[in-house]
Amino acid sequence: MVDTPLLNNINSPHDLRQLPQEQLPQVCRDIREFLIDSLSQNPGHFASSMGAVELTVALHYVFNTPYDRIVWDVGHQAYGHKLLTGRRDRFAQNRKLGGLCGFPNPNESEYDTFAAGHASNSISAALGMAIASQLKEESPRRNVVAVIGDASISGGLAFEGINNAANNKNNLLIILNDNNMSIDRNVGSLNSYLGHITTSKGYNRLRYKAYNSLKRHNLISEKLRGKVLRFNNSLKSLLSSKQNIFEGLNVRYFGPFDGHDLNRIIKVLREVKDMEGPRIIHLCTVKGKGYQPAEDDPAAWHAPGKFNPKTGERRVTEDANSPLKYQDVFGYTLLELAQKNNSIVGITAAMPSGTSMSIMQEAMPERVFDVGISEGHAVTFAGGLAKDGLRPYCAIYSSFLQRAYDHIIHDVALMHLPVTFCIDRAGLVGEDGATHHGALDLAYMRAVPGMIVSSPRDEHSLRNLLYTTQCDNYGPFAIRYPRGSGHNPQWKNEMQKVEIGRGEKLKDGNDVAVLSLGPIAHEVSQAIKSIEETQEISVAHYDMVFLKPIDEQILAEVAQKQVPIITVEDGAKSGGLASAVTEWLNLHGYNSKVYPIGIPDEFIEQGTVKELYERCGMDAASISQVIIRAKNENK
Amino acid sequence: MVDTPLLNNINSPHDLRQLPQEQLPQVCRDIREFLIDSLSQNPGHFASSMGAVELTVALHYVFNTPYDRIVWDVGHQAYGHKLLTGRRDRFAQNRKLGGLCGFPNPNESEYDTFAAGHASNSISAALGMAIASQLKEESPRRNVVAVIGDASISGGLAFEGINNAANNKNNLLIILNDNNMSIDRNVGSLNSYLGHITTSKGYNRLRYKAYNSLKRHNLISEKLRGKVLRFNNSLKSLLSSKQNIFEGLNVRYFGPFDGHDLNRIIKVLREVKDMEGPRIIHLCTVKGKGYQPAEDDPAAWHAPGKFNPKTGERRVTEDANSPLKYQDVFGYTLLELAQKNNSIVGITAAMPSGTSMSIMQEAMPERVFDVGISEGHAVTFAGGLAKDGLRPYCAIYSSFLQRAYDHIIHDVALMHLPVTFCIDRAGLVGEDGATHHGALDLAYMRAVPGMIVSSPRDEHSLRNLLYTTQCDNYGPFAIRYPRGSGHNPQWKNEMQKVEIGRGEKLKDGNDVAVLSLGPIAHEVSQAIKSIEETQEISVAHYDMVFLKPIDEQILAEVAQKQVPIITVEDGAKSGGLASAVTEWLNLHGYNSKVYPIGIPDEFIEQGTVKELYERCGMDAASISQVIIRAKNENK
Repeated sequence: MVDTPLLNNINSPHDLRQLPQEQLPQVCRDIREFLIDSLSQNPGHFASSMGAVELTVALHYVFNTPYDRIVWDVGHQAYGHKLLTGRRDRFAQNRKLGGLCGFPNPNESEYDTFAAGHASNSISAALGMAIASQLKEESPRRNVVAVIGDASISGGLAFEGINNAANNKNNLLIILNDNNMSIDRNVGSLNSYLGHITTSKGYNRLRYKAYNSLKRHNLISEKLRGKVLRFNNSLKSLLSSKQNIFEGLNVRYFGPFDGHDLNRIIKVLREVKDMEGPRIIHLCTVKGKGYQPAEDDPAAWHAPGKFNPKTGERRVTEDANSPLKYQDVFGYTLLELAQKNNSIVGITAAMPSGTSMSIMQEAMPERVFDVGISEGHAVTFAGGLAKDGLRPYCAIYSSFLQRAYDHIIHDVALMHLPVTFCIDRAGLVGEDGATHHGALDLAYMRAVPGMIVSSPRDEHSLRNLLYTTQCDNYGPFAIRYPRGSGHNPQWKNEMQKVEIGRGEKLKDGNDVAVLSLGPIAHEVSQAIKSIEETQEISVAHYDMVFLKPIDEQILAEVAQKQVPIITVEDGAKSGGLASAVTEWLNLHGYNSKVYPIGIPDEFIEQGTVKELYERCGMDAASISQVIIRAKNENK
Repeated sequence: MVDTPLLNNINSPHDLRQLPQEQLPQVCRDIREFLIDSLSQNPGHFASSMGAVELTVALHYVFNTPYDRIVWDVGHQAYGHKLLTGRRDRFAQNRKLGGLCGFPNPNESEYDTFAAGHASNSISAALGMAIASQLKEESPRRNVVAVIGDASISGGLAFEGINNAANNKNNLLIILNDNNMSIDRNVGSLNSYLGHITTSKGYNRLRYKAYNSLKRHNLISEKLRGKVLRFNNSLKSLLSSKQNIFEGLNVRYFGPFDGHDLNRIIKVLREVKDMEGPRIIHLCTVKGKGYQPAEDDPAAWHAPGKFNPKTGERRVTEDANSPLKYQDVFGYTLLELAQKNNSIVGITAAMPSGTSMSIMQEAMPERVFDVGISEGHAVTFAGGLAKDGLRPYCAIYSSFLQRAYDHIIHDVALMHLPVTFCIDRAGLVGEDGATHHGALDLAYMRAVPGMIVSSPRDEHSLRNLLYTTQCDNYGPFAIRYPRGSGHNPQWKNEMQKVEIGRGEKLKDGNDVAVLSLGPIAHEVSQAIKSIEETQEISVAHYDMVFLKPIDEQILAEVAQKQVPIITVEDGAKSGGLASAVTEWLNLHGYNSKVYPIGIPDEFIEQGTVKELYERCGMDAASISQVIIRAKNENK
C-alpha cells in the first residue's frame, strides 16, 4: 500500500475541514498517490480525477458538505470526491459488482447529490436544488455548486441551464473545470471561445483576422459603418479585445484561474461563496495532472486500464489473433464502404475513439463530423445531410442516444430519411453501470414509425448490415451492437446485401424454439449445446437479425410447430423482441407460449458483463434452465 | 374574396422574382390581406406569419428557391411562404384533412425543405444541408438559410447547432426573426440578452446595476482589481457597453435591422448572401404586424380562431355550461393542490397558456417556472427540485416531451424522484398534424423502469390522479390527457386518493371485454351502447386508468372469462396498453385473443380529431365493428 498519512485520517469532509490550510497540498498529494496506486491495479477513469484534485479538496474545504451541495457533471472527475467522503476503504471495489459505482450515485452516498454519467445535466439539476432551498427559505443559506467540464458545458442542456439560471432568483455557483479536453480532444466554437478567453493573444490574432477579412470585403469603410451594416458590435469588441458569453447571459464570470493553485482556488471560492445570484468560476486544469504519462497523453489516460505506476507502462493486453471489438469492425467497415461510396459521411458526438469513428476520421477528415457532446444536434444535422443527398452514419452509444429521441422521430423518421444509427454500447455494458447500459433502445426505436431496427449476431452480420444500408434508400435504419469484442478473429468477410426483415435459422429442433437478437446468440448456442449433450431436448435456434420489420416467415414456422418460444435479447425484456413476438402471435391467432429473456424492468448496477448476464438470467446457464422449463411445461 | 392583384399572379417564387422591387410592398400588402381574409374564416396561426411577411418576400426575392434552401423553424410563420410557393389556391384547406399541413412539410412541397413543428431544429438541419452542398461541390453555390425566432434560438438544440456551425467549413446563413415573443411572452437570459443588443440604454442600466453591486461588495477596489478576482472582462464590457454572444461563438453577426423595412432587408441579404462562413442576421419584427388587434395582443392572436376581419372581434364560442378543457381542469386543480401543499411547484417549457400552467402562475408566480423552449432542462431542473424536497409538476405536450426522454430516464427515474409529468396533448391532436400528435408517450414511458403511467378517463379521474401524486412518494408519475374538452361541466369533484395500479370496472358483460385507457372510454361506451341496443352481445368495459403498473386483478378476471379482449387507447397500437395486456396474458398462460385498437404504426397527418379517429379506426363505429368481429370469431 502507498503511504497516504493525511488521507488515511479523513473519513468525511468534516475531518478535512479540521486541517490547517497549509496541510492541504499534502492531502492532494495523498489523493494522487492513492489514485495512481489503486487505479493501476483496478482500472477506472484516471486522468479526469487527477486533474480535479485541488478543485475537489478546495470545494469540500470551503463548503459545508453535505449540507451544501456539489453536483458533479458526468462524474469521471469525482474519484477524489469519493475518497474524501468516506469511501476510501471501499475504493478497491470501484466499478465492481456490489462495490462502488464509477460515477456519483445518490444511492451510494449523501455526498453524491445527483445522478451523473450523462453529460451536461449538472447546471439544471443544481439550479433546481438552489431554487428548492430558496423556496423552502432554508437557513443557513444552502450553497449549491455545479462542477462542469468544458466539454459538457457545450451541450445544449448546459446552455439551457445557464440560460435559465440568470432568469430566476438563485445563488447557483458553477465551476467550469476547463482542461480543454473531453474524453477525446474537444470541439466546437464554445470550446475555442474558452480558449480565447484564456489566451487573449490567440484571441486577438483571430479578431484581427476577422477585422482584415471585413476590410477585404470593404465592409468597414467609413461610408458603410453604421449605415448599411451595423458592425459596431464586432468593431467594439475588436477594440475591447474580449467578450464574455457568460456575462452576456447575465451570469457573473470570474476567471480564468489556475485550477491547481490550491490557495488561490480556496480564496476565490471564499470570496465568491456568499454573493447573490448565479456565478461562474473558470478554472484551467490539466487532465492527468501530477502523473507525467497522463499529462503527456490525456486521451489515452482517460481510462487507461491497468498500468505500472512506476513506469507508466500501460498493460494493454492485445493479442493480434484475438477478435476485434465490434466498434472497430464498424469503424473499419464504414471506411471501406466510404471509400467506394462518396455519399457516406460519419457523425459522432464527442466519441470518435469510443465508437471507432476515428478510423474513418483519420482517413477522410473532411467527411467525418465530431459535433461534441450534442447528440440532439448530431441527429438533426444528420437529417439535414440526408435530406440533401448524403448518407450519414451516426455512431452514438445507446444510452446517450436517448438524448436524441425527438430528433430521431421529428428530424429523421418523419421524412423517412436514410440516416443509419450505429448504436454502440447496446445492452449491458458492464462496469460503467446503470447510467450507461443500453437497455432501452430496442423498445424506443421499435416505437418509431418507419424505423428499421436490426442487430447483428457477429462481425460478418454487422458488416453485411452496414453494407446493406447503403444499397438502397430504406429510410432510417438502426444497427445496434454491444460493447466489447466479437468472437471471430476472421472478421473481414466479403460483404453481402441482406434482405430487410429476414432472419436466419441457425439450427433446427422440435421441442423448443429460441429466437435471439444480436450477439447474445452465442449464449444461446452454448446453452443449446450443453442441453443437447445431456438431455433429450431438441432445440431450434433462429437469429432474427431484424426486430422491425420482424421476420414473419420465421414466426409462422415456429408458431405452426406449436412449441414453446424463448426470446433472448440484450435489452429490456418488454418493448423489444419479446413484445414483438408475443404481439405477432396474438394477432395471428397462435397460442404458443413465449418465455422472454432479457434485461428486467429495473436499473441494473455495475459489474462485469458476465456477472450482469448471470444476474439478469441472460447467460447460457440461465437460458438452459428456461429451455428445460419450457419443455417441461409443454408436456 | 379580397382583392390581391399581385399575389394572384404569383404561382411560384420565380414569378415573384420577375417583379420590380418597387412592387414588393404591394405583394406584402396582398399577402397580409389574404391571410386576414383566409384565417378569419379558417383558423390557424396568425400573428407569426403576419410578422414575417417582409422577411418572407425578401428571402424568395433574393434567393434562388428552391435551389437555395430556406429552413423555417417551427413554421408558425411560414404561411406567407406557402402562399408564394404555389399553394395559394389550396390555402383554404390549410390544416384540414387531405389539405395543407399547418407547418412546412417536405411531403407537400419542394420549397418546404425540412420538417418543422418542434422548435430549434432549423440551424442543425440547415447546417447539414450547407455541408452536404459543400461536400458535393455543387455549382453554383447553394445557399442555405435557417429562419429562427428568438424563442426557438434559446433551445439547447439551436445552441448546439450554432456551436457547431462555426466549427465547419460552411456558408450557413441564420436569420434571427426577433419579435420578442414565443407563443407566450418570452423568457430566459438569452432573450434578455437579445433585448440588450437592441436597446443599449436598458443594457447599460443593467451593467451599471452590476457595477454598483460589485462596488457594494467591495470587489472592484483598486487593491482587488486584477489581483484577487479578475474582473477585467466585465469591467471592459462595462466600458464597451456591448458584447456579442454570436461573435463570441465565431458566427458573424449583422444587425439588428428593422424586419419590416423591405428595401433594407433585401439590401442586407444581397450584401451578406455571398460571404463565406456562418453568419447571422438579426431582424426585429412585430408579431401580428399590419393588423392592429394582433399587434396589440400578439399572444392572443398567435392562433386566434375565427374572427371578424373588419372589427378584429374574435369569435370565441364559449358556453359557460360547456365542459372545460382538460388542460384547464389540470390548471385549476394544480393550483388548488398547491394552495394546501407548499412543496408543489409548477414547470412549463414556453407553454403556460397552452398547458394552463398559467392559472397557478398567476396566483403564485414564485412557484411556477416557465423555462422557455427547453424541455430537457425543464425535466432535469424538476429532478433537482425534487431531489431537494419539492414536488414538481412538469406540464409538457406529449410530442415535445420526446425531447426530454433521456432526462426523464437519467435525471428523474434513475433516482426514483417524485416528479409528476403532466403530459398534455396526448394522443391525436387534430389540426396540428403529424409533428404534434402525442402517439408515442405510452410506449416510451412504459419502457422507463419505475415510472407510473396513467391516464384519466374524465375530469374527476384527472383530479383524483393529481391529488394522489402528492399523497405519498411514488417516484416518477406520468398522467397523460388529451387536447380539448372533457365531457362533464361539473368537473369539480371532491378529490380522492386512488390506488396505484387499480382500474375500474365500468360495465359487466359476458361475450367480449373492452379495456380502455383514457377519455377514449367515451367512444367505447358509445360503441357498447349502440351494440347492445341492436345486437345480442354482452360487453364488459373496464377503464384501466394505469398502464403501468397494470391492474392484474382486472386482467385475471377478464382472462378467466375466456372472452376476446379489445384494448382501446389513444396512442400507438404497439408499445402501450395492447402490448402490456398481451404480454401479461402470455406470461400468465392465458390464450385470450387481444384486438388492439389505437394509432397505427405510421405518421398521421392533420384533420379534426373526429376525422382522425375514424381514419385510425378509433371512433365508436369502428370499435363496434371490432367488438362484433371479436364476438363472431370467438363463436
